[in-house]
Amino acid sequence: MNPTLEIFSQGEEIVTGQTVDTNAAWLSQQAVACGFTVTRHTAVGDKLDDLIILLLDISQRADCCICTGGLGPTSDDLTAEAVALAFNLPLEFDGIAFEQITRFFAHRNRTMPESNRKQAMLPQGAERIDNEWGTAPGFSLQYGRCWFVFLPGVPTEMKHLFQERILAKLSSRFLLKPDQLITIKTLGLGESVIQERIKTIEIPPEVQLGFRAGTDEVQTKLLFPYNYSKTAKTALVTRFAEQLGDHVFAIDGLGELTGDLVFEIDRLMTNRRLTLAVVETVSQGLLAAKCVGSEWLLSTIYEQSTARLGHDPVTEAGAENLMVTAKAIAADLQKSSGANYVLVQLCAGDNDALNNKDKSIVIYNTLLAEDSFHQATHSIAGPIKRKQNQAALMALDLLRRYLQQKAINY
Amino acid sequence: MNPTLEIFSQGEEIVTGQTVDTNAAWLSQQAVACGFTVTRHTAVGDKLDDLIILLLDISQRADCCICTGGLGPTSDDLTAEAVALAFNLPLEFDGIAFEQITRFFAHRNRTMPESNRKQAMLPQGAERIDNEWGTAPGFSLQYGRCWFVFLPGVPTEMKHLFQERILAKLSSRFLLKPDQLITIKTLGLGESVIQERIKTIEIPPEVQLGFRAGTDEVQTKLLFPYNYSKTAKTALVTRFAEQLGDHVFAIDGLGELTGDLVFEIDRLMTNRRLTLAVVETVSQGLLAAKCVGSEWLLSTIYEQSTARLGHDPVTEAGAENLMVTAKAIAADLQKSSGANYVLVQLCAGDNDALNNKDKSIVIYNTLLAEDSFHQATHSIAGPIKRKQNQAALMALDLLRRYLQQKAINY
Repeated sequence: MNPTLEIFSQGEEIVTGQTVDTNAAWLSQQAVACGFTVTRHTAVGDKLDDLIILLLDISQRADCCICTGGLGPTSDDLTAEAVALAFNLPLEFDGIAFEQITRFFAHRNRTMPESNRKQAMLPQGAERIDNEWGTAPGFSLQYGRCWFVFLPGVPTEMKHLFQERILAKLSSRFLLKPDQLITIKTLGLGESVIQERIKTIEIPPEVQLGFRAGTDEVQTKLLFPYNYSKTAKTALVTRFAEQLGDHVFAIDGLGELTGDLVFEIDRLMTNRRLTLAVVETVSQGLLAAKCVGSEWLLSTIYEQSTARLGHDPVTEAGAENLMVTAKAIAADLQKSSGANYVLVQLCAGDNDALNNKDKSIVIYNTLLAEDSFHQATHSIAGPIKRKQNQAALMALDLLRRYLQQKAINY
Repeated sequence: MNPTLEIFSQGEEIVTGQTVDTNAAWLSQQAVACGFTVTRHTAVGDKLDDLIILLLDISQRADCCICTGGLGPTSDDLTAEAVALAFNLPLEFDGIAFEQITRFFAHRNRTMPESNRKQAMLPQGAERIDNEWGTAPGFSLQYGRCWFVFLPGVPTEMKHLFQERILAKLSSRFLLKPDQLITIKTLGLGESVIQERIKTIEIPPEVQLGFRAGTDEVQTKLLFPYNYSKTAKTALVTRFAEQLGDHVFAIDGLGELTGDLVFEIDRLMTNRRLTLAVVETVSQGLLAAKCVGSEWLLSTIYEQSTARLGHDPVTEAGAENLMVTAKAIAADLQKSSGANYVLVQLCAGDNDALNNKDKSIVIYNTLLAEDSFHQATHSIAGPIKRKQNQAALMALDLLRRYLQQKAINY
């Protein structure tokens, strides 16, 4: 059993939603990577009673708690006071902390406001955490079952202190055995379809399976215990990859650095010094926009009416004709652009179908690579922005599949 | 006293930090705007016991709770089960929910996996919340002191359901006295510049001033008490608007529905039945992508080398020449596209400057409208994705200023 850890964020700006609590996510990632089981995040505002109750609750249920915020000089910064009251540890003046705060202002040629003196008051017996990046020192203390660490809420200060002062203490205070996380990234399969595909795979009870569906990829996650055999791990991941087939565009956690779909395409296109020209319809520039910074993308064209691409209006054509039209547009564009590869996205479905979230449209993607055409058809539903994003992804994925297949065949 | 509300997020991906909980911030903002006092955010993972304890705790201490996540089809989606156990409300099969889930798959020509059947099981007595954007219906129920609302964790679905199905119910269930929020939306002024500009304005102590800087706009927020006089409110907002000048593209909260920059442009272009053709450089398709669903956008072209637009490569030209080149490209495109307006974005700065976050690039935007040219120059710094986004916004803002100015002169 891993030791448990909770994240506690203090601040009115967080509970009112003015600030998104990115500290909590960052600290959790760090804690999980260290070998903790993170059990809970809690955020409360600047109310002394809420803070006291929460501190007492956490002291009984977690092995460790990282708290951020509420260490500032103003009257709504109540963390130290709440700790003093909750744990009956009166605030005491810390001379070294005060000297550091004074020096912080002196270095910046500013007079220290009287209110900052408050930041040198720490709960009795707490260990000070020096903060050279700001005025608020952190502190740590054990109460009940839990080791508490209090850090400032400013993300840069918080991250710096965590990495420089806390990480080493965590390893010495706790027996940590971090799990190994494998993330299989796919496109084109929903979470439930993935579950169907992998249901015949026997997953040892000590391996945790999870899913995460984002707008740009679906992640299948396998969490292996600390000492899991590498051979058994690789064997299980391989079985997953086989079941998910060429929907898998990257596997994270096996050593090689991976990224999103565009990252994978970028690597393959750049390695082989290839170039690409694109025609977009439904994605309306988003395909090109996703590739920002990629030198291999020479051009994109979006035309509301494909008649203006020098070919028949596609809305009047059938699926067969669309495929033929796409090939002709691709061949023309390869000649005129001089790009190695050309990607053409055509669409069947009128503007009404595009705008109506209850109607679906059909996307016809054509890749002209070397001297051969590769085509794929997809039905896309949902709100227009989802259709736009899926249209961009599906066209890019046709390119990715071709590039990865080619990489295997080399 | 406002009624209290808590946010409860369920998901291993949140407690482990794989996902930043933006849902909690968004929901809190909405709740505050409605007239609730948000007291706490809590996130827990996929552990039945944790969920049950938390649900019981919340049922005793809050008037309302919005819960997100854990409604999916997979075995780690435990919300409904936890509710059933915590509140002793056995799960019951909901035929209408099942029919909706079945239809969701049928519309997409996919077979419904057996696992999705689980999503039609709702706690006894719960009111179903139909979700036409995904497979998971939400539900609501009263237990103890608290009215619970359970929504899917996918942000688009969650937001849609909250706005379409929950907001109205909140107003009918609770006596809400929301503060009156005015949001002045600007582009092109940083937060500190705005503060300088407004510093001479006297703000009554009962009015709260706040700022929120997003990637696509900066919001200056004025929060007036529930019963604040309309005349005094309008007078103060007008003073702010005067100081911020034509950087203001919309003012929210005065009655008229407003949106983002594209929303404002869309209204003006559609009203006058105008059309637009675009040439993009740094924005690389993102300008067009932002306008998805707008019938007035006829085309966009992105070319890595402007030589291919039939004009001199812009990187070798000076600012003067760039302006001339842009006009020539705009005039050509107006002829060939038949669009009423043409927007041309050119850029001075090489690839190195674009990719280097410490270097800035200069964008030259040209609008050809009716028979006249309008030009604006902007220096943009930061990471490449910021440059891309700002380039798209600045070009669109040139169009917005022209359209709004014209609307005033009519």
